[in-house]
Amino acid sequence: MSSISSTANFFDRPETKLLVPPLNFAMVTSGIYRSGHPLPINFPFLEKLKLKSIIYLGEHDLRTVNVEWASRNGIKIFHFRMENCKLPFVENDPEAIAAALQVVVDSRNFPVLMHSNKGKHRVGVLVGAMRKLLQKWSFASIFDEYGQFAAGKEDSDIEFIEIFNADLQYDPKYAPSWLR
Amino acid sequence: MSSISSTANFFDRPETKLLVPPLNFAMVTSGIYRSGHPLPINFPFLEKLKLKSIIYLGEHDLRTVNVEWASRNGIKIFHFRMENCKLPFVENDPEAIAAALQVVVDSRNFPVLMHSNKGKHRVGVLVGAMRKLLQKWSFASIFDEYGQFAAGKEDSDIEFIEIFNADLQYDPKYAPSWLR
Repeated sequence: MSSISSTANFFDRPETKLLVPPLNFAMVTSGIYRSGHPLPINFPFLEKLKLKSIIYLGEHDLRTVNVEWASRNGIKIFHFRMENCKLPFVENDPEAIAAALQVVVDSRNFPVLMHSNKGKHRVGVLVGAMRKLLQKWSFASIFDEYGQFAAGKEDSDIEFIEIFNADLQYDPKYAPSWLR
Repeated sequence: MSSISSTANFFDRPETKLLVPPLNFAMVTSGIYRSGHPLPINFPFLEKLKLKSIIYLGEHDLRTVNVEWASRNGIKIFHFRMENCKLPFVENDPEAIAAALQVVVDSRNFPVLMHSNKGKHRVGVLVGAMRKLLQKWSFASIFDEYGQFAAGKEDSDIEFIEIFNADLQYDPKYAPSWLR
């Protein structure tokens, strides 16, 4: 007789029908989702999205449980090492952002989940850069959206988005429909 | 020679390439967007979404300019009269929410934009009801999402979402892929 359930079993109980999206989960545009770092409790929800790939912006390795889950589900992981911006010592890394955008201009990677740890700052910068460079949103709209998730701790992220530029290569055959 | 441009011409200048989404615009899930009341400045952005319909939760008639724009673009408007919740005098109207959800369980209406005036409270209640009833999200996730847009002025909206229930009819043939 076992009296202690593992965390996984606890959340997998068939009578628990609720789905739990990751922290700060949202749909960005067709084919793209954003969030904080997924936990095992979020896996049943994420499996419904039928993800083809994950973009992770983080300085550490992904948790083993996430890597194994992605592998089981045929999800390709693009990990771009990027520290959280901490001025004046750590700045946002334009190369990591450009590399992540390069994944995003190829719809064969869709649906893709882009996540950082909290889903606020690094992923907010990535979404902002995408809105500006690929979708030509106005800055007012970009900053509004950034602020909905970042809630006051902007540091220099919005300045970064405003000046960010990158020379992205893409095959028009596989370009997302929302690319302008 | 004309020295005064109309508002429409001003925003239509070809050198102004930026797109301006409506206030509090976001993608809810495949086929569904949310926002505040669109203004003419937002029309070029909205036209890219190729909307089939609009759900408007508001107590007043839609602005004529919006009705004409929708008609020109073949967009069907579903207007459900609903006042903003002002306790203790005005409560959220479960019938309006249920009627709006009825539009949402038929993917032939997609892509659909659901909007109120600010895109915070009424549309937040509609999205919350949808997350709960149709997508089986956990309450924690629903309230998080509601709060991202409503920013502190919740009144009794989240309690409404928690107790809301409706008997929705739908044809499985036209059910959205995310319906559980």
